[in-house]
Amino acid sequence: RSMTKTRAGGDVIADWLHEHMGGAVLRKSSLGGSSWSSAYRYELDNGKHLFVKLATSGDDTMFQGEALGLQAMYDTKTLRVPKVYHFGPLDSPQGGGTLRGSGSFIIMENLDMQGRPSMHELGAGLARMHLAEPGDENARAGRFGFAVDNTIGGTPQPNGWMDDWAAFFRERRLLHQLRLAGDAALTRMGERLAAHLDRFFEGVQVKPSLLHGDLWSGNYTGVSGVQGPEWAILDPAVYYGHHEAEFGMSWCAGFSGDFWKGYHSVLPKEPGFDERRDLYTLYHYLNHYNLFGGSYRGQWRLAPAVIFKGRLLLKQGLP
Amino acid sequence: RSMTKTRAGGDVIADWLHEHMGGAVLRKSSLGGSSWSSAYRYELDNGKHLFVKLATSGDDTMFQGEALGLQAMYDTKTLRVPKVYHFGPLDSPQGGGTLRGSGSFIIMENLDMQGRPSMHELGAGLARMHLAEPGDENARAGRFGFAVDNTIGGTPQPNGWMDDWAAFFRERRLLHQLRLAGDAALTRMGERLAAHLDRFFEGVQVKPSLLHGDLWSGNYTGVSGVQGPEWAILDPAVYYGHHEAEFGMSWCAGFSGDFWKGYHSVLPKEPGFDERRDLYTLYHYLNHYNLFGGSYRGQWRLAPAVIFKGRLLLKQGLP
Ligand SMILES: Nc1ncnc2c1ncn2[C@@H]1O[C@H](COP(=O)(O)OP(=O)(O)O)[C@@H](O)[C@H]1O
Ligand SMILES: Nc1ncnc2c1ncn2[C@@H]1O[C@H](COP(=O)(O)OP(=O)(O)O)[C@@H](O)[C@H]1O
Repeated sequence: RSMTKTRAGGDVIADWLHEHMGGAVLRKSSLGGSSWSSAYRYELDNGKHLFVKLATSGDDTMFQGEALGLQAMYDTKTLRVPKVYHFGPLDSPQGGGTLRGSGSFIIMENLDMQGRPSMHELGAGLARMHLAEPGDENARAGRFGFAVDNTIGGTPQPNGWMDDWAAFFRERRLLHQLRLAGDAALTRMGERLAAHLDRFFEGVQVKPSLLHGDLWSGNYTGVSGVQGPEWAILDPAVYYGHHEAEFGMSWCAGFSGDFWKGYHSVLPKEPGFDERRDLYTLYHYLNHYNLFGGSYRGQWRLAPAVIFKGRLLLKQGLP
Repeated sequence: RSMTKTRAGGDVIADWLHEHMGGAVLRKSSLGGSSWSSAYRYELDNGKHLFVKLATSGDDTMFQGEALGLQAMYDTKTLRVPKVYHFGPLDSPQGGGTLRGSGSFIIMENLDMQGRPSMHELGAGLARMHLAEPGDENARAGRFGFAVDNTIGGTPQPNGWMDDWAAFFRERRLLHQLRLAGDAALTRMGERLAAHLDRFFEGVQVKPSLLHGDLWSGNYTGVSGVQGPEWAILDPAVYYGHHEAEFGMSWCAGFSGDFWKGYHSVLPKEPGFDERRDLYTLYHYLNHYNLFGGSYRGQWRLAPAVIFKGRLLLKQGLP
């Protein structure tokens, strides 16, 4: 029995595609998957191609964070982002409702991953996304967060709105990961740093920017567009935050000097950027600690070093 | 005038394709490029698709390291590697010879980047490549190095054969990068670590394995194969070395627990792996220092921390 069949024997995805994309499924190719999801390309008899991800467990909120995040980035009309058509639970003939634990799916535009524009364009496009007028009224009102919580890697990422950026980053990012880590020594070190976060933002005006939120090299790619190759960004952990927080994963993004030139030509670099980037990196190091710490040693071992460096900076006085 | 035209007005690449791949060029699409190279897909009227990279300066040794490295990995028949058909200088009607500074090109199989097999398969396939009988007689005789020097990122990587792995890694990897860095304090720290490298290898038998040499997430990808999605590896800095040295870039490779299970199911993990991986990581940190240190601060700042940790290990006694 196919995973996408409902208990009643219908195929939720094919049904949805037929009803809303106006075509019957001609071909379905497996594109592999991760431990909790599998991906397919559907070709319809009307020539449309769709990219579909399935999760075999969990409810339809599984893809909610991804869907709303992709949609928000898509709406900025800056970098290329696959258009999301639908997400829902698998085990319902209507593809709606909230039956728990039966699996879920997301249907989006299929991108053709070919070509590679200049790195300068990626930087400039990302900066334009960061400068785009927020689509969410909370963000327009100057608040930080997102309409829904989502995940970073596999870790829950809380996005409840807050007025102050340093407070948001302290509470929903650093302290959240430290609580998950549950390591007394790390927590003691981290809390002392967290208590003085404001000092990293002295003289800096932070406005809510739409962030991809997990921008490493695995999540951007060249795709073919109508006018030649374009940069697309995928698999985000979107929220509205300080634009510099986007660079917490840039130790693994392969951004060239050209990228930075492009980015800073649109959004100039501010004093203290390097020190704040250490803070933002720390969030992702702590996340790696929480994701991988138990099973094998890796990058996460650097978290204490970064905390130490941050506290040293506080003592010596920031730039 | 097209970049691929010779001074005499012929098109070296089209001529070569016509003569050796038996087809005329139907379409040529630009796939973008880096600061020193540009990439194209050529479609021939006999249905063949080729991937071509051009460099507008330098001689034909430009792509020699890449070509011989890809070929050596291809010959192991393990992971998917694009087949290299030809490389040569641009400015010669024969596509041969060694005219300096006129640019060069490489022609290889075009891979269709779609799909994603399991991470377990990537790990197992990589381990099989590491265990493959070396194609080079020096490596079969137990020596470390490669037939030609190549580059890592943009940095020269010397590969002259040596009998002893610790000596090779000290001389051609660590001390080489320290010399390029030309930082007195870093060199003093690093040299003291380098002097005692042997101790990291006590009780470990190191055999020459064919290494990709620059295995981060940007250099492996799912591609479509005859029997479904396969893993391909690209853009290598190949040499024969200790198989664990392959993981010097794995802080930016996105390898999941499943990857490691796959790898170690074929090539079991040995005691001291984590400490040696720090050493191998250090090589790449130093390289990032040399590539980016001047223009902006980044990951390279971690090099001193890793050296420090290595020397601490030496003092405390290795595991
Ligand atoms: N819109 C799309 N069109 C075509 N391929 C896609 C699309 N989105 C993702 N992919 C491919 O599927 C792979 C997995 O997608 P990703 O969103 O990263 O999944 P996961 O959440 O399982 O990590 C990507 O590496 C990419 O190759
Ligand atoms: N054999 C191939 N077939 C199709 N596309 C390829 C092939 N090799 C590389 N590419 C594409 O071209 C891009 C650049 O290739 P790469 O070898 O990494 O170039 P560079 O040396 O300029 O970094 C890759 O990211 C990939 O998308």
